[in-house]
Amino acid sequence: MAKEKRVEQIADMEADFTQWFTDVCRKAQLIDYSSIKGMYILRPYGYAIWENMQHILDAEFKKQGVENVYMPMLIPESLLQKEKDHVEGFAPECAWVTMGGSEELEERYCIRPTSETLFCDHFKNIVQSHRDLPVKYNQWCSVLRWEKTSRPFLRHREFLWQEGHTVHATAEEAEAFTQQMLNVYADFCENVLAMPVTRGQKTDKEKFNGAEATYAIECMMHDHKALQAGTSHYFGDGFAKAFEIAYTDKNNQRVAPFETSWGVSTRLIGGIIMTHGDNNGLVLPPMIAPIQIVILPIAQHKPGVLEAANALKARLSEAGFRVKLDDSDNSMGWKCAEYEMKGVPLRVECGPRDIENGQCVLVRRNDGEKIVISLAELEQAAQAQLQSVQDGMYASAKKNLDEHIFTAYSLEEAKALQEANGGFIRTMWCGDEACEIQMKEQAGMTSRCIPFAQEHLSDTCACCGRPAQKMVYWGVAY
Amino acid sequence: MAKEKRVEQIADMEADFTQWFTDVCRKAQLIDYSSIKGMYILRPYGYAIWENMQHILDAEFKKQGVENVYMPMLIPESLLQKEKDHVEGFAPECAWVTMGGSEELEERYCIRPTSETLFCDHFKNIVQSHRDLPVKYNQWCSVLRWEKTSRPFLRHREFLWQEGHTVHATAEEAEAFTQQMLNVYADFCENVLAMPVTRGQKTDKEKFNGAEATYAIECMMHDHKALQAGTSHYFGDGFAKAFEIAYTDKNNQRVAPFETSWGVSTRLIGGIIMTHGDNNGLVLPPMIAPIQIVILPIAQHKPGVLEAANALKARLSEAGFRVKLDDSDNSMGWKCAEYEMKGVPLRVECGPRDIENGQCVLVRRNDGEKIVISLAELEQAAQAQLQSVQDGMYASAKKNLDEHIFTAYSLEEAKALQEANGGFIRTMWCGDEACEIQMKEQAGMTSRCIPFAQEHLSDTCACCGRPAQKMVYWGVAY
Repeated sequence: MAKEKRVEQIADMEADFTQWFTDVCRKAQLIDYSSIKGMYILRPYGYAIWENMQHILDAEFKKQGVENVYMPMLIPESLLQKEKDHVEGFAPECAWVTMGGSEELEERYCIRPTSETLFCDHFKNIVQSHRDLPVKYNQWCSVLRWEKTSRPFLRHREFLWQEGHTVHATAEEAEAFTQQMLNVYADFCENVLAMPVTRGQKTDKEKFNGAEATYAIECMMHDHKALQAGTSHYFGDGFAKAFEIAYTDKNNQRVAPFETSWGVSTRLIGGIIMTHGDNNGLVLPPMIAPIQIVILPIAQHKPGVLEAANALKARLSEAGFRVKLDDSDNSMGWKCAEYEMKGVPLRVECGPRDIENGQCVLVRRNDGEKIVISLAELEQAAQAQLQSVQDGMYASAKKNLDEHIFTAYSLEEAKALQEANGGFIRTMWCGDEACEIQMKEQAGMTSRCIPFAQEHLSDTCACCGRPAQKMVYWGVAY
Repeated sequence: MAKEKRVEQIADMEADFTQWFTDVCRKAQLIDYSSIKGMYILRPYGYAIWENMQHILDAEFKKQGVENVYMPMLIPESLLQKEKDHVEGFAPECAWVTMGGSEELEERYCIRPTSETLFCDHFKNIVQSHRDLPVKYNQWCSVLRWEKTSRPFLRHREFLWQEGHTVHATAEEAEAFTQQMLNVYADFCENVLAMPVTRGQKTDKEKFNGAEATYAIECMMHDHKALQAGTSHYFGDGFAKAFEIAYTDKNNQRVAPFETSWGVSTRLIGGIIMTHGDNNGLVLPPMIAPIQIVILPIAQHKPGVLEAANALKARLSEAGFRVKLDDSDNSMGWKCAEYEMKGVPLRVECGPRDIENGQCVLVRRNDGEKIVISLAELEQAAQAQLQSVQDGMYASAKKNLDEHIFTAYSLEEAKALQEANGGFIRTMWCGDEACEIQMKEQAGMTSRCIPFAQEHLSDTCACCGRPAQKMVYWGVAY
């Protein structure tokens, strides 16, 4: 049967998760390779997921008073160099433009790996008085990071993202806004993408180049590796001073303002795939699925079936769902496998007998559950089942997260737990970078975050035995 | 008064149109300069216009069955070179990436000046059978063209645009779709941007590098210069053959498909400014204005005024208008000038006496007309007045266009008419590029288009006196 044949095309996720992931990206037609290594083509189905995410996030940003702008994609080298830590972090990954037409440029330009320097250069012009503050800007764009290795969605040399950049009069306001935007991301991941998150602060070693503090949301993938899903950075007045941004405060003094930046990217699509996918392919959260409901007519050549299917489609579209009717001449088996591969949350089956009985069958993608409903209750049942899919996906992911957080009291124990189970290993930590390096070298884990929800597990650092400062989550990360 | 002071800040458009244009771009806060010559920052107010345009155009594209995708921003030089005419046209304007991190690249990459080559490279992979056709893709992105001179919105080294790329089984279908997309652009310009257009075909000299035919819409600016507002290209099977794209047709033969591409850019914002603006600043078509209605309370410190103004705002927002209430402590004169500068289509004034009388005053931006209305009819009156602004703007622009189309029968006459009046000079033309060059050298005009609406003005070419083929519109263009 067509169905079986189709499913055979992807690797078994338990046997080879990496191959399974790549297979899903290709077979669900999210992505294609381009002629440059590490640069991918976002195909219509993949891009549509991003558009749906953009739509929801952009509305959330606007609720926070954020306005969209567009900055140039090129950064003069001299501008990139103004903030010392920042350039050190990003220069090794920059793609450099050295020629314009047939002429060598006097100064080389890098394609933005991130745009703090460009925003600061602009803020210097537009921030003059306390009346100009706060400034809350965002841009949707692509950035380039010339990395050696690449994987679809997780590590692109070019990827799509949004980067927010704000300027505030006080440190308190900037710090609060940094956390506020982390919460926007966390709520988006949990409520829209059905991906439970752990919120926390990055260690100094892992924070953004040039930031005073980086906050992150960390997610747990199906293979029990960690994925950093979004970050929000508090800059203090470091960038402002480096770029000579100053405003006249209410006491008529020239002072430096405080800044933040925050971003999420198409990497989130990688997160969705690895959180929710299964051996039949993609499983998409209804809220961002390009097709929420697919209607498959059974025995569609029989009288009345296509008319009935079209009527279902009209009703569901009218009710605001994103619906597709597949009346192609592919077999039912092929179609079921196809839309399972594409992760369509809800399938509606409708054949001659269903029509006779005034009913149709709803099939949930996440757990395969079939529900026979009366056609009279179509819209309400579709809504309820989509909600059930969304809730069921979150619950599964939350269970996976909760079952893969382990407590360790020594580096050896941490290492053994990671090797046996993956997941987040939580330990107490002295705060010394040397212990982070030791954890990396001996147990292969990086610090994922210092969770906001702290617990006192013991008095001493799991690595060195000195007095502990914080509880840290460690993990193997994408 | 604040108002007068504010208006003095921009140049008189009749005295110095170029300076007036730049002043409007800056003072209406559409744009700011960046640290790279020819690359501009789109500020929130300018970007919001683009977002509104995107929203409407994207919906139109989707009605045409077009899907959005995202292609990489870099093109390997070898890929750019596959279509000979195409590379000749674009290579001189390419910005070249030659370094990744600290390493010299083996092959240099240009930042996309347009993406035909990238799309063709992808089409080669995804187009195999007649069942795969048509493919109708679009992407929203920025492109780079390393030009010597630049002007806000009209000529950026980097600009935002959309580029559509389609593949069809037959030449007829591709040709029809090329014209269909030109019509989408024309309708958008006329119905949304209130900019009347002339539709026609470009001469071979002016067509897109690599196209068989380029169709364009040409608009008339306030200073009687022409602006090419959008183009749609028919490629025949030239690109398909150069990139070895082929599909298996119904007779099981491998054949090359036919392609199109089409685009509009932020240049349209330049067109809006130069079509509708006046000596008080910007005048925005209501359909794309970020703020459609601004509410200015009069004597706002008096009891009840701010409450009434807020109630108006709530009602208008509820009715779906984009509304702003300015209750800042700036003077009424300053506020009026500010929102005139920003081109807000409708101003609502509301003071203590108005409230007493259950009325408010609507002021149209395009003609300054004031209308006193009863508060009971607020929503309907606002809708009617915005429609009146939209219609009035179109009518003015149409009058300007119609009054600046002149007929000439010789090159000398064409030159004299252009010098005296500007505008489009229409003449008969033999079809020879030599005459186009002569018109450029002697009269300073390029062929704008061969209008679809042809007229037979005379039997002979205005330049050389040989038998005429077509009527051409000539003009001085941005």
